[in-house]
Amino acid sequence: MVRVGLLGCGIVGSAVARLLHARKEELTLALGGEPIEVVGVAVRNPWKKRDVPIPPHLFTTDALSLVRREDVEVVVELIGGIEPARTLILAALKEGKPVVTANKELLSTLGREILDEAEAKGVDFFFEAAVGGGIPLIRPLKEHLAGERVRRVVGIVNGTTNYILTRMSEEGLSFSEALAEAERLGYTERDPTADVEGFDAAAKAAILASIAFNARVVAGDVYREGITGITPDDIAFARRLGYAVKLLAIAEETDGGISARVHPAMVPLSHPLAAVSGSYNAVFVQGESVGNLMFYGRGAGGEPTAISVLGDLVQAARNLRLGGRGMGCTCYYEKRVLPSREMDSQFYLLLQVVDRPGVLAKIAGAFGENQVSIKSVWQEGTGERARLVLVTHRAREGAFQATLEALRGLDVVLKVESVMRVEGEE
Amino acid sequence: MVRVGLLGCGIVGSAVARLLHARKEELTLALGGEPIEVVGVAVRNPWKKRDVPIPPHLFTTDALSLVRREDVEVVVELIGGIEPARTLILAALKEGKPVVTANKELLSTLGREILDEAEAKGVDFFFEAAVGGGIPLIRPLKEHLAGERVRRVVGIVNGTTNYILTRMSEEGLSFSEALAEAERLGYTERDPTADVEGFDAAAKAAILASIAFNARVVAGDVYREGITGITPDDIAFARRLGYAVKLLAIAEETDGGISARVHPAMVPLSHPLAAVSGSYNAVFVQGESVGNLMFYGRGAGGEPTAISVLGDLVQAARNLRLGGRGMGCTCYYEKRVLPSREMDSQFYLLLQVVDRPGVLAKIAGAFGENQVSIKSVWQEGTGERARLVLVTHRAREGAFQATLEALRGLDVVLKVESVMRVEGEE
Repeated sequence: MVRVGLLGCGIVGSAVARLLHARKEELTLALGGEPIEVVGVAVRNPWKKRDVPIPPHLFTTDALSLVRREDVEVVVELIGGIEPARTLILAALKEGKPVVTANKELLSTLGREILDEAEAKGVDFFFEAAVGGGIPLIRPLKEHLAGERVRRVVGIVNGTTNYILTRMSEEGLSFSEALAEAERLGYTERDPTADVEGFDAAAKAAILASIAFNARVVAGDVYREGITGITPDDIAFARRLGYAVKLLAIAEETDGGISARVHPAMVPLSHPLAAVSGSYNAVFVQGESVGNLMFYGRGAGGEPTAISVLGDLVQAARNLRLGGRGMGCTCYYEKRVLPSREMDSQFYLLLQVVDRPGVLAKIAGAFGENQVSIKSVWQEGTGERARLVLVTHRAREGAFQATLEALRGLDVVLKVESVMRVEGEE
Repeated sequence: MVRVGLLGCGIVGSAVARLLHARKEELTLALGGEPIEVVGVAVRNPWKKRDVPIPPHLFTTDALSLVRREDVEVVVELIGGIEPARTLILAALKEGKPVVTANKELLSTLGREILDEAEAKGVDFFFEAAVGGGIPLIRPLKEHLAGERVRRVVGIVNGTTNYILTRMSEEGLSFSEALAEAERLGYTERDPTADVEGFDAAAKAAILASIAFNARVVAGDVYREGITGITPDDIAFARRLGYAVKLLAIAEETDGGISARVHPAMVPLSHPLAAVSGSYNAVFVQGESVGNLMFYGRGAGGEPTAISVLGDLVQAARNLRLGGRGMGCTCYYEKRVLPSREMDSQFYLLLQVVDRPGVLAKIAGAFGENQVSIKSVWQEGTGERARLVLVTHRAREGAFQATLEALRGLDVVLKVESVMRVEGEE
């Protein structure tokens, strides 16, 4: 049998333990007749009551000893966070033991150290569950697209914010009402900051960008805006214009380098991502040869995430027994990560303006001077309620910010009511 | 270098040859520094002008000798059809050479013979490109979901018919108008029968069912109806009721066995498959633990399909060099494939009826006697234009056909105007 040391027995860890038991027959067949067995579980509190089919004597608080135990052949790390996960994973790899993890924080910050160690030892290090929960993403990007040039990856990778935006859109709820509902339903962490401010999505964007473009991108490189400022008005206006509002994780390669960012954006309702609602996740991949691909499913939750862990575990165990190795680190190149002012987007803009002849000329002038090209513009209302709606062609973030500055200085512009990026159109 | 013998140099074969050249750097990195080289190409006419970066002297008509040539390490079969593909693949496997193919006809009919040979020799046999063109499906189903129990697979797996249905839906075209348009755009084979009658989709349904349920299903097991009978009226009516009409390939596991079928169906507009339009393909997978997954992309075309071939080729080449083996045959079980009368569906029914009291009671009686439960029913129009629209709960096909027979015998039913299955709702 293949002997597994399990680190962590929380929501995902206990689902892995239960499924290893419940799906024993399928998993054994996938391994050519050899069963996978959990031979030890490291937890903080071994006396806590847990709904897992693992005898109490296998629980321990001494994670490091479990990792180093001679009979442990594969380590599954589901503690999360930086430490002690980092130390434990490095210890396992140093001993030549393959590691399966769902740890996006560690990967998106100190991934290089871990992946270098795995390479040095020639050991499998798999992390399908780190992005997109139960959705296969990492392996398809690395293996299926090994011969592809990926241009762009655009994902809805945080279920909590997608649930909140969906509820705001469907029911006209405010951000705080929708957040409260998500909290009631248990869709949020105790502190929802990492979700609603886009930190969780930024970590995933860094991982996706690194794999898609074969270069290292860390969470700190990712430009980030959350959804706390989105109003029901923004969403209603977007819908009237034919857009849904989504929190997107975007990774693009341009001539100047890699653009990696997380922000709310208006997505055309005809785009496949616009229909991804509730707590679902989806990642849209554009490749030079393959065209558009989309991967859709449950981005969180114990059982879906555990399925990804089991898939990795089967591959690691097969490689242990049959020889062979999964694709390791694919960050072959050093590439520049663009600062936000060099990133490209389309922009939507809602301006409260003075209603008199010549206003549009002044406003269009501010765009022209900054080399931002207007795609469409129209007036809503008249007199004191006159507003201009503008959508630009793709433009540099820096140029757009300069335009915004210039607009704010115009006497005909009473107020910049709303600004949002538009993605998935050009 | 890893030496490849390429069999066939048509649309997919030539795209593979071009991409092996254009993506040499990426592919070499994925193989740890070793390039992949085409050392021979077997074609019917070696003098034909082809846009591929392969020197003329590498072309041959003697496919079998190429397969057996000592320096050929991997065989890529892109001829299609049963013979000579079958003989060539078996010859390669017998020599212990891994094979990559896109051959759905062969797999869905004589797959067992091929897979048994690959197992006997312990050699990789990969066929990601056989279903869904550039979409990763086979590997995710086998590897990512190794620990999952798949309940149902529902796919739009034929781009030609999806294009036709999309045009009928968007523009109100008739079937023959939309088919003519698809032919003009080169979206069809010379003889469109395999597409519009559902044979192509049935072959793919057989492959998906075999992998999803770990049991052998062949194309002949798949119940099949094409789209030639679909009218613009059917589509307009479906839309009014909140459905899109799609040609679906469905594989389900129930207590009695495996249900595998291809037929047009009404899909709720809120279902992710309803938004899959034009020549796109998508496969929706429902698993016990992972919930809903969907894979979306280009289901045909030289370059997308070639990307799947390259992904397989990289895996086969890595396994050659590093040891190890991909998941082979996963048809572990013998399972019963249900005859069509034992399959379950929801049904939509449009009846022209006499408009007088007591009619509904008679009609409802015919359903009740056959154990088919009505989910919703309403009347459209009055007097001579009176029609009843009914949607059932999930029911046995056999019971529904008996109901239909009974309805046709009722004097109050003037005509059964339209019958269609409904999928994706319950």
